[in-house]
Amino acid sequence: MEDGFKTVSIIGVGLIGGSFALALKNKGLADKIIGYGKNEERLKRAKNLAIINQFTTSLKDAALADLIVLATPLGVFEKIVSDLAEFLKKGTVVIDVGSVKEWVVERIEKILPSGVHFVGTHPIAGSDKTGFEYARAELFEGAKVIITPTERTDKSALEKISILWKKVGADVEFMSAKEHDRVYALMSHLPHLISFCMVNAVSEIDRNLINYAGSGFKSFTRIAKSSPELWGDIFILNSDNILECLSIFCDQVEEIKKLIKERNLDELKKCIEKAKNLRERIS
Amino acid sequence: MEDGFKTVSIIGVGLIGGSFALALKNKGLADKIIGYGKNEERLKRAKNLAIINQFTTSLKDAALADLIVLATPLGVFEKIVSDLAEFLKKGTVVIDVGSVKEWVVERIEKILPSGVHFVGTHPIAGSDKTGFEYARAELFEGAKVIITPTERTDKSALEKISILWKKVGADVEFMSAKEHDRVYALMSHLPHLISFCMVNAVSEIDRNLINYAGSGFKSFTRIAKSSPELWGDIFILNSDNILECLSIFCDQVEEIKKLIKERNLDELKKCIEKAKNLRERIS
Repeated sequence: MEDGFKTVSIIGVGLIGGSFALALKNKGLADKIIGYGKNEERLKRAKNLAIINQFTTSLKDAALADLIVLATPLGVFEKIVSDLAEFLKKGTVVIDVGSVKEWVVERIEKILPSGVHFVGTHPIAGSDKTGFEYARAELFEGAKVIITPTERTDKSALEKISILWKKVGADVEFMSAKEHDRVYALMSHLPHLISFCMVNAVSEIDRNLINYAGSGFKSFTRIAKSSPELWGDIFILNSDNILECLSIFCDQVEEIKKLIKERNLDELKKCIEKAKNLRERIS
Repeated sequence: MEDGFKTVSIIGVGLIGGSFALALKNKGLADKIIGYGKNEERLKRAKNLAIINQFTTSLKDAALADLIVLATPLGVFEKIVSDLAEFLKKGTVVIDVGSVKEWVVERIEKILPSGVHFVGTHPIAGSDKTGFEYARAELFEGAKVIITPTERTDKSALEKISILWKKVGADVEFMSAKEHDRVYALMSHLPHLISFCMVNAVSEIDRNLINYAGSGFKSFTRIAKSSPELWGDIFILNSDNILECLSIFCDQVEEIKKLIKERNLDELKKCIEKAKNLRERIS
């Protein structure tokens, strides 16, 4: 296991946890993968699908691994890491795959005993789909993975985790946790928030109008199918950045509203053109 | 030509006009299709691609058809119909495929001479792609097409146009122009407006962050690649309905903002769950 880990525990075998397990197995980067969760029936099914090698509902058992991957909703990270802490052996590496980094990294670094190494990571590979049923080994191929080291991050653990993500196909990028949260408030958290609001505006006006959705509405609101468990936590744990971006978005709304009210077609077209040009920079 | 038309003029051979031409030909619903436009080079290319049988840059020539299809951006409908009016023969049917109906139907009905029959239609089959290069005969298969008759609409023209849309695969639905504009302000025009604002918020903060777009951002803002020509007109010609829906959307934004500020996780999850449930009603 030069580049990999002997035993890996996946805490939360969902879309991301399950896909990471499959990717590690596929690339020969783990000898044994233990799935931890609360629902034994679901863990059994994940084992039957060969996503994990064994499962446990005991954090004590899950703690005895060389790599521990936190892949539950963000809101329970703190509790889980606190419960895990006493059982962890020195040299174990803990990573998370959460969508908010500053709060997570700060909390987890505080809780973990010395000799246990934490590295914060965020694969940009989520989906509106949840559950290991949608897991696939290729999920991270070509996906960006942001790694957010701090002054306390162990250099060799950091290197090992960077290599691990690269080996499963990811395009690794380093950023401070603070910078990460600012970027993804704008590029992911805000669009989700707006998408939920758009669908709730339909609820408010007339739920039955949902039947008139065309392809535009569908792609615009695909992310409104995302998990309430995951997104409730994200909105609260990255609230400052999200509210700041939301305010800038609302200024843009006010601007276009003004142009519409003034029936200023030229400026309106320029405003649309500007959005179109920037959006077309995405491959 | 029991169900079809001998000669059809397509005014504006773009994605919709071109696809309609291909669909009519495919189903044997037109003997000859004339493409009208301003750009002779592009019309030649459309002819070479066998989208149209012949082309003209003279409205006088385009007027001599049994069916005339207005498929330009909305803003030029009035001018085109005014210029066409004197050349139209009695019995000709004129339809449009515009995304706003009340303003269009009112104006066109006023301009057209008696004996020429107008039927307002709106195929819900647009795209962020524009131009006949993306045209395909199957574009309307399974798509909703809203037809907006008025008291003045000729019954036999209405029936013939309904059959025509059904024959090219559309799921035809009748609505008043007023109702249509209310429904699509919410289900199409507002999402486009918001998507443009979202991308412009990225511009405002840091254009380079566009490189951090994941799949969520991409699908959310796909419609921000739409045509400024088309959408500028839509925003102005359906402004009242759009501004009303926008205000309801903004109330939803205020609501979720309040929940985030209060760190009210339970209500936040309920709010997301509500959106998720309604969004999942779309097949």
